Amino acid sequence: MELINKMLEGDKRSCAKLISIIENDEKGGEKIVKEIYPMTGNAHVIGITGPPGGGKSTLTDKLIKHLRKKDKKIGVIAVDPTSPFSGGAILGDRIRMNDHALDPDVFIRSMGTRGYLGGLSKQTRNAVKVLDAYGCDYIFIETVGVGQSEVDIVKAADTVVMVMVPGLGDDIQSIKAGIMEIGDIFAVNKSDLMGSQRTATEIKMMLDLSENLDRRPPVVMVTANRNENIDKLVEEIDAHIAYMEETGNLEKRRRSNFEDELLNLVEIEIKKLIKEKTEADGGIKTYAHQLLSRDIDPYTIRDEILEKINLK
Amino acid sequence: MELINKMLEGDKRSCAKLISIIENDEKGGEKIVKEIYPMTGNAHVIGITGPPGGGKSTLTDKLIKHLRKKDKKIGVIAVDPTSPFSGGAILGDRIRMNDHALDPDVFIRSMGTRGYLGGLSKQTRNAVKVLDAYGCDYIFIETVGVGQSEVDIVKAADTVVMVMVPGLGDDIQSIKAGIMEIGDIFAVNKSDLMGSQRTATEIKMMLDLSENLDRRPPVVMVTANRNENIDKLVEEIDAHIAYMEETGNLEKRRRSNFEDELLNLVEIEIKKLIKEKTEADGGIKTYAHQLLSRDIDPYTIRDEILEKINLK
Repeated sequence: MELINKMLEGDKRSCAKLISIIENDEKGGEKIVKEIYPMTGNAHVIGITGPPGGGKSTLTDKLIKHLRKKDKKIGVIAVDPTSPFSGGAILGDRIRMNDHALDPDVFIRSMGTRGYLGGLSKQTRNAVKVLDAYGCDYIFIETVGVGQSEVDIVKAADTVVMVMVPGLGDDIQSIKAGIMEIGDIFAVNKSDLMGSQRTATEIKMMLDLSENLDRRPPVVMVTANRNENIDKLVEEIDAHIAYMEETGNLEKRRRSNFEDELLNLVEIEIKKLIKEKTEADGGIKTYAHQLLSRDIDPYTIRDEILEKINLK
Repeated sequence: MELINKMLEGDKRSCAKLISIIENDEKGGEKIVKEIYPMTGNAHVIGITGPPGGGKSTLTDKLIKHLRKKDKKIGVIAVDPTSPFSGGAILGDRIRMNDHALDPDVFIRSMGTRGYLGGLSKQTRNAVKVLDAYGCDYIFIETVGVGQSEVDIVKAADTVVMVMVPGLGDDIQSIKAGIMEIGDIFAVNKSDLMGSQRTATEIKMMLDLSENLDRRPPVVMVTANRNENIDKLVEEIDAHIAYMEETGNLEKRRRSNFEDELLNLVEIEIKKLIKEKTEADGGIKTYAHQLLSRDIDPYTIRDEILEKINLK
């Protein structure tokens, strides 16, 4: 494929076009992934996540600037939590990242969740593959939010940086419980704000309580908008990947991520198949109608659907 | 089933036991749902959601107290965003709800996300069915977070109350974009805090920009911890359901929720089937290993898995 050859030679526009195909055209995306797949596996993929209000975009921006000084090639996929109902992505403060628009060695793309029906992690993963083949040394996947979908997305990463921030209110306890074990590194951002030291201490305490951590995640205080301690965070990121490589954990994690990826791909196909096979009977709508009238229970209908696709 | 009969007679402990079975024993849960299903469909199910730090539990608590004065029977399912990796639920400030422990007409249950593998919305929905058959007039589903899983959960509701709060920082713009269209009612909580009026105005402006809303969601200022304006919020909840019934939208929404429920049930079975059918070859792990070594690409393996379960 012409576009792939040009992308492999370092053409940024071709890279952008390939990712657009992945976003918009399923069959085309599949073809691209099949072709570039052997050229992937070299990038260090880093998830940047954490509760809203943490300043993740500013932090990513500073990480890029720092790594560019070391002449590293960088890719960023910023995942926007667009409404699953309406479409339309809001880029928010990601617009700041425009600073890098003219740099051929920084590639940034926002991806929205609209229309993917569980396919966002597929799209994200495939875009990461393109950036990997494009030769990026570091690929950042940035997400907003703390739900299951964010967990799924950062699962595509080798290293997860959890960005925390002081003063998130009561719910912080339960947020922490939910994310404590997916963070490889904790960055307490806006550490010039009151309460940041306390937040760091709380995180450390929760980490002390966590069992089955084979490596205690470091907690780094940063102030992204003042560019403070970004070098320290980069050191920790590099230390994490070095540790993962030495211990064989990198292979283990990537294998486990691949398991998720495969299940996700299969699931998407099966959803399509169900749609196809139930269409003649009025589709899933007819079944929902029977549920509404309480004629049949959900489990009996489930079994009927499984029969339709010959799985029962 | 003895437990079901006792629950239908109003025994709270039997109701609790049934929900525990649903949480812990898949086959048992299926049997319960099949049996109680014809007795469901009478409760008004209300999702309480919104970004962290909004004081949702306090608000739910005040809603319960208000509705109890009107002699309504209440159920609450509080969904904890527990780590998908470790298990262990943190109840956080839900402990406050213990006030209602002795009231036979208030049933509160926390459900964690641990171990469900995409099954949380199934468990939540089934617990709602039990509370519905138990005779609850209102059932609240409370979630923390703004991710896809939270959206899935509130999709089980007739009415969604989106709890907003002043001062959530930069990310609020993108959060809003993500949740604007799932809120039927917006409650700006902690409206004694600075900036609450601005938050309300911002929400109204975003609602003005939203297309295809058949009903403009009201924005209610509340201060849950001072019990201010809870009556107004309850009025809006009742007005919403009345509107939904009159327009036929309630039926439409429930049907669409049922479609999601059915797809979710089918998905869970198929995941089990894949596990079973690939076991002889070393399971999905073997496939992941081939991906790691770049021997085959993900799409080719996906097709192999589909073949294994006779879907290709």
